[in-house]
Parts: sequence; C-alpha cells; structure tokens
Amino acid sequence: MMMDFESFFKNELDGLHQEGRYRVFADLARHRGDFPRATRHTADGTQEVTVWCSNDYLGMGQSPIVTEAMKRAIDECGAGAGGTRNISGTNHYHVLLERELADLHGKESALLFTSGYVSNWAALGTLCSKIPGIIVFSDAGNHASMIEGIRHSKCERVIFKHNSVADLEAKLAAADPRAPKIIAFESVYSMDGDIAPIKEFCDLADKYGAMTYLDEVHAVGMYGPRGGGIAEREGLMHRLTVIEGTLGKAFGVMGGYITGSAALCDFIRSFASGFIFTTALPPALAAGALASIRHLKESQLERFAHQERVRRLRLLLDQRGIPHMVNPSHIVPVMVGDAAKCKWISDLLLDNFGVYVQPINYPTVPKKTERLRITPTPLHSDADIDHLVGALHSLWSRCALARAVA
Amino acid sequence: MMMDFESFFKNELDGLHQEGRYRVFADLARHRGDFPRATRHTADGTQEVTVWCSNDYLGMGQSPIVTEAMKRAIDECGAGAGGTRNISGTNHYHVLLERELADLHGKESALLFTSGYVSNWAALGTLCSKIPGIIVFSDAGNHASMIEGIRHSKCERVIFKHNSVADLEAKLAAADPRAPKIIAFESVYSMDGDIAPIKEFCDLADKYGAMTYLDEVHAVGMYGPRGGGIAEREGLMHRLTVIEGTLGKAFGVMGGYITGSAALCDFIRSFASGFIFTTALPPALAAGALASIRHLKESQLERFAHQERVRRLRLLLDQRGIPHMVNPSHIVPVMVGDAAKCKWISDLLLDNFGVYVQPINYPTVPKKTERLRITPTPLHSDADIDHLVGALHSLWSRCALARAVA
Repeated sequence: MMMDFESFFKNELDGLHQEGRYRVFADLARHRGDFPRATRHTADGTQEVTVWCSNDYLGMGQSPIVTEAMKRAIDECGAGAGGTRNISGTNHYHVLLERELADLHGKESALLFTSGYVSNWAALGTLCSKIPGIIVFSDAGNHASMIEGIRHSKCERVIFKHNSVADLEAKLAAADPRAPKIIAFESVYSMDGDIAPIKEFCDLADKYGAMTYLDEVHAVGMYGPRGGGIAEREGLMHRLTVIEGTLGKAFGVMGGYITGSAALCDFIRSFASGFIFTTALPPALAAGALASIRHLKESQLERFAHQERVRRLRLLLDQRGIPHMVNPSHIVPVMVGDAAKCKWISDLLLDNFGVYVQPINYPTVPKKTERLRITPTPLHSDADIDHLVGALHSLWSRCALARAVA
Repeated sequence: MMMDFESFFKNELDGLHQEGRYRVFADLARHRGDFPRATRHTADGTQEVTVWCSNDYLGMGQSPIVTEAMKRAIDECGAGAGGTRNISGTNHYHVLLERELADLHGKESALLFTSGYVSNWAALGTLCSKIPGIIVFSDAGNHASMIEGIRHSKCERVIFKHNSVADLEAKLAAADPRAPKIIAFESVYSMDGDIAPIKEFCDLADKYGAMTYLDEVHAVGMYGPRGGGIAEREGLMHRLTVIEGTLGKAFGVMGGYITGSAALCDFIRSFASGFIFTTALPPALAAGALASIRHLKESQLERFAHQERVRRLRLLLDQRGIPHMVNPSHIVPVMVGDAAKCKWISDLLLDNFGVYVQPINYPTVPKKTERLRITPTPLHSDADIDHLVGALHSLWSRCALARAVA
C-alpha cells in the first residue's frame, strides 16, 4: 500500500483550517513615496489600504537615500552577485557594508548573510556544533531561527525562563563549570515588545565564563545614538561576544549579519554551511543597506519621530480604552485574546476601514493572548492614527470585547 | 578553568591555513554593460580582471531587461518587502513570480524562498520531518543545502551511489515497502557538470511509490525550449513531484523556489519554519527575476550562444592539451589534481593574466581532483577564450602539469 502524498498534504491543511491557523497572505503593492499606503490585490479587484504591521519600522524602505543607492549600484554592477562569496560573488559593497556594520556595533568584524534567519541559524548552529562540549543557555522566548540553529547543532541545550536573571543564574550554576557556555537571547522581543536585562545577563556571562549572543533585529536602527540597538543605548555593546542584526527591518532592505571579534567572524565565515554554499546578496541590497545605516548613524529625526508616533498611538488607545500590552519598545500589541475574534477584527479592519493589521494567533503567541501587533512608523500621520483608533473603537463595541481599565 | 574562545577560533583557523583550505575572497565590482569584466580591489589598489567562474551563466545579471525591471520596481514599491510573507511582506511581484515559475515547470504552484539554499533546506526539511516514517533516498553527490535539510528532519536516510540507477533500485528494494519514500537528487551537478538519469529515477519512483525531488539550480534558464531545465528538455517535468530552482544563477538575480502540486506548495508554505519566519524577498528582486524568466522562456539566443562558447572553449583546451573533465553540461572543470598547485595557478592567472577563476579544493571536491571550475558565458569573446587558454598553456608548462592525451 503506497502512500497517497496529495491526500496527506490536503489533510494536514484541513487541520490548519479547522484550527483557524490557515494563513492567507495579503497581496500588496506598497507605494514608494506614499508609505504606509499600499494597493491590495484581491480576486475582486484592488483596494487602497494603510499598512499598520510592517517591520519597515522607520520607513527607510522608501527613503530616496536607500532607493537611489540601490539603483546606482544596479547601474554600476548589475542585478545579482553571480556566485557565492568565495566563488566570484563578493562585491565591493559587501566589503564596505561589513566594515560599516562592525563599526556600528563597535566590533572588529562583521559577516553578512542572506537573511536574519540564516544569520542566526548558521552562526548559532556553527558555534554550538563546533565548540566541543558547549552548553547553550537559550531564552524561552527566542526566535525560531535561533531555536533551529541550536537544534541543528545537536549540542546540550538549557532553556531559561524568558528574561529571567534568577532562572538563568540557577541554570548556569547547576551546569558543569568546566563546560564552555553560550547565552543566547534577544534585546527587543517581537511579539510582546519587552526588552532583555542585557547588563545582568552579561554579568552572569562574566561570572560563569560564558559567551553572549544577542539578537538585535528588532532594535538596530531604532535605538542608541547611532542606531546600534539597545546594547548601544545601554553602553553594553563591548560586553556582547556576538551582536546579530538584520538589514530587513528598520534599515529597510534585506539580509542579516553578525558582528564580533575578527577571529569569531572568520571562524563562522570558514565553517558555516549556510554562509558558504549560498549565493551572495545582490550588490544593490548591500549598497542600499550601507546608505541606510550611514544615514541612521547620523540622523536622529527618524528615531525621534518613530518614538513620538508610538507614544501618540498609545495615548489615543488609552483614551478609548483599547487594551494594549505595556512595554518599553515601539511594538504595540493590541490584545484580543481569542483566535476567531482576532481574525474577524483583522478582516473587518481591512475590508471596512482599509486598515491592514495581520492577526497574530497561536502558535506565534500563546492561546488566549491573540493580538493585533501594530507597528507605527514615522510615516503614519495624526489622521492615520485617528482613523485606526476610531476603527478599533467601533469594532471593540461591535465585538463586545473587554475594555482596558483606565 | 574557563574556555578561551578566541584561542579556540584562532586555532581552528590555523588548521585551515595549514591544510591550504583557508578561503580568501576576491573583492570584485562587476561592470554592468561590460560583463565579464570586473574591478578587483586589493590592499595595493585595483586591477581590471575577466571573471571566468561566475554562476551568472547567461549574463542576465547585466541585461537591461532585468536591471530596468528592478529599477522600476524600486521606483514603484521601494527597497525591501518590509515583513515576512504573512505579515505585510507579500508584494504583488511575489504573486506574479510564483505564477510564472509554476508555469515554467508545468506545475500547479510555486513557492519562493530567500535563496536556493533555504528552498532545499526548508522544503526537504519539512517534507522529511512531517511525513511520518518517510525514508529519503539521497544521491551521494547532493548539495550541502539538501543534506542539511535532510539532516534537520531527522528522518531515515539512505545515500545511494552518485547517479547510480542500480544502486538506487537495490536500496529502494531493500527498504520497507510500506514506508513513504522520497528520492532527492540534482539534474546538473555543479562541480563535475554531469547529469542525472532523471527518467530512470522517475521509473524507479513509480515502481516503488516514491516522491521525486529534483534540484535544477544549475539548469534552469539554460536547458529546455523555455529554460525549464533538463527535465523540460527531456520531457519529464510532469514526472517530478518537486522541481526546485534558483533565481540567482542563470536568471541573474537571487532567491530560490520550489514548484509542485498546489497542496504540496501550500503544505510547505504553512509548515516550513525557514519560509514562515523570514523577511520576504525585496519586490525589485522578484520583478527582476520575473523579467528574466519571461525573457528566457521566449529567447533561445542566450542558450545557443552559451552552448557555442562552451564548445569553443573545450575545443581550444583540447588543442593545447589542457585536461578537462568531459561532461554533457556547460561546466568546464579543468583538472589540476593538487591543492597547492591549484591555488598557485589560480593566483598566477589572477595576478599575471587578469583571469579570475577560483580554485576548487577539498572538501568541495575530493582530494586529487582539485580543479579550476570554468564557466563560459555568452559574454566571453573569442579573444577572452584565446587569452584564457593561452594563459593556461603557459602555466601548464611552468608548473610541469600533465597534458591531456589527444
């Protein structure tokens, strides 16, 4: 009896539908020069919408500084890199960008990857598989890419309670003192917007002789006087062994990277399969990211405007009693607490109000904490915020959802 | 006694230096409109070189069809996608490109990934981990990305002899007949340029009820009347369950994809961590790839010119007695058979002749088969070929390397 693969796939997909977890992608065309506006393509035609859930946090994806740098690089060097970094694919923009990233985080070196996902997977996977006997201490809230990298390495893994200094210390103390150790965590967590106790984790790393690996993908460009992230803002960059980041969120392009000592980056460069055996980033992406980073090292305008927009949205949500999770970052999770209602509100926002916020349901967040993850940018106007909050207010009444207590 | 991580990294790197395996990347800037020419940056200044080892096989990376499409998309939609495919990152160009890819391979659906590496890793990793009890039959020559995906899945794995129908059949026959099975292989193998017996493997798949997974990254755009790859040329596309390809080689841009049934692609879309949790390709890359694929579906010029350049290079190599591996593809492995000499010849070609061919040493190829992997493109002129072969001839004499017997 041979397996019917098609039936298997369909059956698995049916399961997702029944659990309300089947994802439908919104087919969008963002308008350069008019962010956060986009055209949504549907089977029935097109609709103009306002995007409220982009990770292009500062709108740099439409900045002429970035787009013109990309177009210039296309004119100079063409479309793709044409090879792996080792076999003809290293372009001078890659070299310049790696220098800029090392400087951004105060490290000796940097290494580019095709995405933030690959940078975490490849760097953690390589460190944890190549250092004999290493134990990784991994925050329970870590991103899928870090988890997959650690899992890939097959090293000993200890999960500590999310952002808990006490639990991390208890687990470090219980481990073999002679074993090499690495503590892997994020600065800003994507879904709750909370921030790790970086200093305390570094203190523990010093005490127990551990390396530190910090994912700053939701912070680079947005925090610190030069956009170096939370560790820069806190004056802690020199205490991290590895700072990992992305070019695909606040910097507005695509790609990932690590920064660290020259020997560490060269080690990953030399041994990470996910770095070695893949075509390099197109020169234009490196050129665009380089321009974006250089701009955000100098300019505070985007960061100030971003933080002001976040404050204003929260104020208006509070005035209307729309419950949102309190956190010290730029991520505004509006809590619904029910998967079906979360999807329904998201659909109504899109269809009736032209407001696009993707619902975030299990397994991305725990059940009963389903939410709309709202990301204001400097490009959302007062009128945009008023419209969003008015729409939420109207839907909150229609759906009989709980209000926040003032 | 805490571990000294820096010393560990340095020691590992010293090992690579001692084995002659330490990689130094050539820092290049290719010139759009003047491929295969590039400027090489060195500590001493710059040097003009001719690139002879690019995987931009047809030179589409400099085609105005591609570069203008990319620039238009940047003007329309900006730089990055701004999110994962699910959370605001799906751009209309992704949707159009997936349709085009499905059509290219005669399949119901296609799914984009950030790279060919990720497409293999994520698709094979998901299929092999999610289908209970599946056994994967993997060609011994498969690419690192396929191996990592299979390894990641932790499923039962059977390696069969490279391109061996007899060995694959013996291993299929020996396996539990009730277990679901998948046969994973490539069409054109990158380093030897040999081609799989696709029809015979498909016959075995039918006989033993196995799925087939074919990596066509070194064939798409270059073979078949519409550039659908070797399977298109052989009239076999409909017999493959999954055809995987890349946008980063003959199509000249970056990214990877799978094509297959609607249910299969939707299944991978819904369950593959490496697809779900990563920022989507920039709209401009999707637009450039779309233009490239559409052009190569219609035009035979690039394919004819490519094959003619390959034939001419081989003819001139034969005339000078430079040994190269015979194969039915466009890859010309000039055999050196010694790691140190291979590196030395490559350095001399670059420094003395302005010819850039990366040396390919162990572990990418077996010891004693070290080689220069040469990839002629339609953009290499007769003079370029004469210059390359003349340089090789001169170095062959200086290095006292064996000549091929006519």
